[in-house]
Amino acid sequence: MASMLGAFVTDFFTYETTKSVVVKSWSVGIVNRIIQLLIIIYFVGYVFLYEKAYQQNDTGVESSVMTKVKGFGYQDNQVQDTADYVYPPQGAGVFCIITKVIVTDNQTRGLCEEPSLACGNHTDCEAFYGNNLVNGAVTGRCHKNFNASEGKCEIRGWCPAEKKSFRREPMVDVNNFTIFIKNSIRFPMFDVTRGNFPQHMTSKEIKSCSYHPVRSPLCPIFRVGDILNSTGQDVHTLATMGGEIGINIAWRCDLDWDEEHCRPQYSFTRLDAPFSHNSVSKGYNFRFARYYKKEDGLDYRTLFKAHAIRFDIMVTGNAGKFSTVPTLINTVAALTSIGLGTVLCDIILLNFMKGADQYKAKKFEEVSEAQIEASITQSQGSQLSLKQETKTLCDSGAVSLSNDLLP
Amino acid sequence: MASMLGAFVTDFFTYETTKSVVVKSWSVGIVNRIIQLLIIIYFVGYVFLYEKAYQQNDTGVESSVMTKVKGFGYQDNQVQDTADYVYPPQGAGVFCIITKVIVTDNQTRGLCEEPSLACGNHTDCEAFYGNNLVNGAVTGRCHKNFNASEGKCEIRGWCPAEKKSFRREPMVDVNNFTIFIKNSIRFPMFDVTRGNFPQHMTSKEIKSCSYHPVRSPLCPIFRVGDILNSTGQDVHTLATMGGEIGINIAWRCDLDWDEEHCRPQYSFTRLDAPFSHNSVSKGYNFRFARYYKKEDGLDYRTLFKAHAIRFDIMVTGNAGKFSTVPTLINTVAALTSIGLGTVLCDIILLNFMKGADQYKAKKFEEVSEAQIEASITQSQGSQLSLKQETKTLCDSGAVSLSNDLLP
Amino acid sequence: MASMLGAFVTDFFTYETTKSVVVKSWSVGIVNRIIQLLIIIYFVGYVFLYEKAYQQNDTGVESSVMTKVKGFGYQDNQVQDTADYVYPPQGAGVFCIITKVIVTDNQTRGLCEEPSLACGNHTDCEAFYGNNLVNGAVTGRCHKNFNASEGKCEIRGWCPAEKKSFRREPMVDVNNFTIFIKNSIRFPMFDVTRGNFPQHMTSKEIKSCSYHPVRSPLCPIFRVGDILNSTGQDVHTLATMGGEIGINIAWRCDLDWDEEHCRPQYSFTRLDAPFSHNSVSKGYNFRFARYYKKEDGLDYRTLFKAHAIRFDIMVTGNAGKFSTVPTLINTVAALTSIGLGTVLCDIILLNFMKGADQYKAKKFEEVSEAQIEASITQSQGSQLSLKQETKTLCDSGAVSLSNDLLP
Repeated sequence: MASMLGAFVTDFFTYETTKSVVVKSWSVGIVNRIIQLLIIIYFVGYVFLYEKAYQQNDTGVESSVMTKVKGFGYQDNQVQDTADYVYPPQGAGVFCIITKVIVTDNQTRGLCEEPSLACGNHTDCEAFYGNNLVNGAVTGRCHKNFNASEGKCEIRGWCPAEKKSFRREPMVDVNNFTIFIKNSIRFPMFDVTRGNFPQHMTSKEIKSCSYHPVRSPLCPIFRVGDILNSTGQDVHTLATMGGEIGINIAWRCDLDWDEEHCRPQYSFTRLDAPFSHNSVSKGYNFRFARYYKKEDGLDYRTLFKAHAIRFDIMVTGNAGKFSTVPTLINTVAALTSIGLGTVLCDIILLNFMKGADQYKAKKFEEVSEAQIEASITQSQGSQLSLKQETKTLCDSGAVSLSNDLLP
Repeated sequence: MASMLGAFVTDFFTYETTKSVVVKSWSVGIVNRIIQLLIIIYFVGYVFLYEKAYQQNDTGVESSVMTKVKGFGYQDNQVQDTADYVYPPQGAGVFCIITKVIVTDNQTRGLCEEPSLACGNHTDCEAFYGNNLVNGAVTGRCHKNFNASEGKCEIRGWCPAEKKSFRREPMVDVNNFTIFIKNSIRFPMFDVTRGNFPQHMTSKEIKSCSYHPVRSPLCPIFRVGDILNSTGQDVHTLATMGGEIGINIAWRCDLDWDEEHCRPQYSFTRLDAPFSHNSVSKGYNFRFARYYKKEDGLDYRTLFKAHAIRFDIMVTGNAGKFSTVPTLINTVAALTSIGLGTVLCDIILLNFMKGADQYKAKKFEEVSEAQIEASITQSQGSQLSLKQETKTLCDSGAVSLSNDLLP
Repeated sequence: MASMLGAFVTDFFTYETTKSVVVKSWSVGIVNRIIQLLIIIYFVGYVFLYEKAYQQNDTGVESSVMTKVKGFGYQDNQVQDTADYVYPPQGAGVFCIITKVIVTDNQTRGLCEEPSLACGNHTDCEAFYGNNLVNGAVTGRCHKNFNASEGKCEIRGWCPAEKKSFRREPMVDVNNFTIFIKNSIRFPMFDVTRGNFPQHMTSKEIKSCSYHPVRSPLCPIFRVGDILNSTGQDVHTLATMGGEIGINIAWRCDLDWDEEHCRPQYSFTRLDAPFSHNSVSKGYNFRFARYYKKEDGLDYRTLFKAHAIRFDIMVTGNAGKFSTVPTLINTVAALTSIGLGTVLCDIILLNFMKGADQYKAKKFEEVSEAQIEASITQSQGSQLSLKQETKTLCDSGAVSLSNDLLP
């Protein structure tokens, strides 16, 4: 029992390494080393240095955005300030600057004509039952004067109805408005927190600067005109129709370096670009109302159809930091890949080299079932346990000798 | 010196390949090839074709959502339009359709009775100090008529207080409302921008279509009734209590194909489903107020408790595109895995085959410390450098012979 | 033809395994096994158990947040309820509690003095053209009394202008307000839906609990004072200046276990921490207005500069579940890494062991171009096809002998 255990332990603490054939040939040797060099260059240069495969990545950035718009504009000779044209007012990451408003004053609930639905008789109007695109619920009645050939369908809703043909100049002063953006982010995986402007910037520096991609890439004050320019938008068209502008704040951080290098990069895009060829829903607008009460308690409202430039601040982040798991996995992949160079060299060596058959004979040692059976029979026949043992221990050298030299 | 360098260069440009034993046995050969085939099928079929392991993935989709609700409904015989029932009005990705409103008119700041707090004396009311669940701050006084046994606690707040027992019919017309969704996305890693309806769709096509998962999966107009149906919700219950509906837009894009195949897939879920068994906070409601001013400057307000259906549009994206790094790593993993088939075959060959010992002898060439020491002693003793050299060059065959046969 | 095919099939169903040298040496054997053990421990313990490399991860969590604030506070002895101080009112994931309001009543559009712009003459004011930081558009005129040395610049805007010097006590009662958070999430990859409080919690349990990280970590009711405490904020400063608080809900789910273990973890951070050293834009405030109409139709408004505590509820999720692809890739990496232990052992064995040259001779079998050429010439010269064939079959033992010993 003890000796069995001893034998097991002895067997266990052995070291097994592959037996190799070393081919001393310049041609194959050079090919081999060049392939290995290419693989190493690929891994070191591309996979490790360029793609940074040794890093663990955190893309789940947590972000908080605070915005503040400043500036004054005019619509119908009425001055507009932030409280008038920014909606929603609380300075979130998505906000609108209202650039054109179509106002329908003094609406009360009741029955009135829908300007866009012409009719000859009631049947014409009944066809519009359930139409959602007008200003109220179609009642099915046609309003027309005694001797007119055409009238308008009646609707139930807030009257008078909004007029479609209203033309009004947009507030192009939006060009000179400024947007202040305060963005703080956190990479939860690495617990790194960053702000979009440096801590040493003073109040005065910030108030007097204006973002420029080259000259002041870290200034958090953006002129609307600059943003529109960099997306190639015309301010008059945009202010008239409304539109959606994306302000992307990209945080690409290599946290193996100092955190100070982890800085935001701003880019501006027109978000409705994929729809630029569609004739439908050009621009951006929404309706809201302000509600008032008469002294007698009657509700009335002012309806606003607001064409607005909507700004969506989108924050994306990708931080990388050295981590053992991806490093190890990629290192193993690299080392294994170097080994794969032998596949190609073997093909060259064993097929296209002068003396390929000799190389084959060197590399491959064949053993067929017939040989094994012969060897079993032989050992059993002669009962030479010594020889059997010898054969078990020693390798084909012996077999070759017995084949080649002895007979 | 030069010869040393020459020797080093000669040594460097050599090619080392493993020495292999080729077993010409049908049984092991077939097992070997079947295992290799299974591994190849797994990698090619599952890992590469199904899981697309050759692709780099971008899940950090940038998204912008614009919505517009259309339709008319009635509450208390009063017509409601978009400006009345959609909150917030600016057409964001999260919006509410208010389906039932409990109105408390003409509130002014002051002292009044809280309907839900019954009391017999002041001590009863003092117990409710700091209670946040009522309509105002509890003052600790009990209001009751001279000969009544029970009264109500007094609160300081906007009076009169909202009544809890209010019953009102919800606006079930919400079923026929339509939601227009404009969603543009960008995969920043690949710089691919897409919109949720095709560029060739005309204004007329869009206005007349209605989303259907099979018949018109790309129509951006959704009937609320269809959405509620597909989540299995009853419109009357939902409109009465309020609720949260998720509209998920999933972009699964294989960018190795044409971008035109990168299309949105819509799905609808009831977001409060995880809370369906809780008795608390069924539904969804919020309070807001409209503020008015009397001629004399006194503030008064109308409080609204709005039960609403909230729609959350959630955009998720996953784009894949061929990339060398994952392809290489997975290919190396595949090739290495094929090699792992030999582990199993070795176990079969060396343990369960007829003639396993002979195979073992073929595969393994043992060398023990005793042999090595003997060989060192021998070569040192006889000073036969020629033999020493022979031994260094030739393999164990010679050694085995000298050890086993000669003595 | 048939025999060629037969030969090909016979060649195909062979099994090739590497020929190995087994070194029966305690020293190398122990080193070998220790290295292998360390590699296995690393992979099993760290990569698989700790880093869970056998799992596929879904970080693209879909989330929906509903909030409700309760409580009453006082400003200027006026009671404030939820409808007064929460903005926006609809209970979204980002909301503000307004803690201090600077009210400018009865504003109408017109011309008035800007309190912050002092001037001696019109030229002074013309220098402020286009200044966005004041209360209206600077007209360039200087208003001053007949015999005064200094006046104020005139602006066009809503008059009277907001006064900067206004001092007002903040609503510190915010400390006792409670926030109810309902958060439902979904991991789309695994189609798992979870809510932030357990299904068995009753209405009464929820209404009476208060979140505590240890005692009641699943209670969805948060006292504002507790949140501010855990971020180390002083309520008076925060209520005066406004600020931004992040409520992070982290879902780390191991879905190989029961879903019930997939629970939220709350943490609270001060979001403007990265800007704590900047003197600019301390705190958080925004302006909004309430619009009124006189009986004669004239618009007037009340402007509010609201200092508010903004709460951003940020939901992050990471769910892992067993998946074959990462498991396989990491297992292959592990097995391959074990093989890499031989690299180190080979270095020890072939360089630092006693008898290293003998081991080298065992492991490496050299074959030079000269040998191969000699062997080709010999076989061609003697035309002994039998011998040639023998040599192809047998290995270097024979070749070495015939080359080294025979001539």
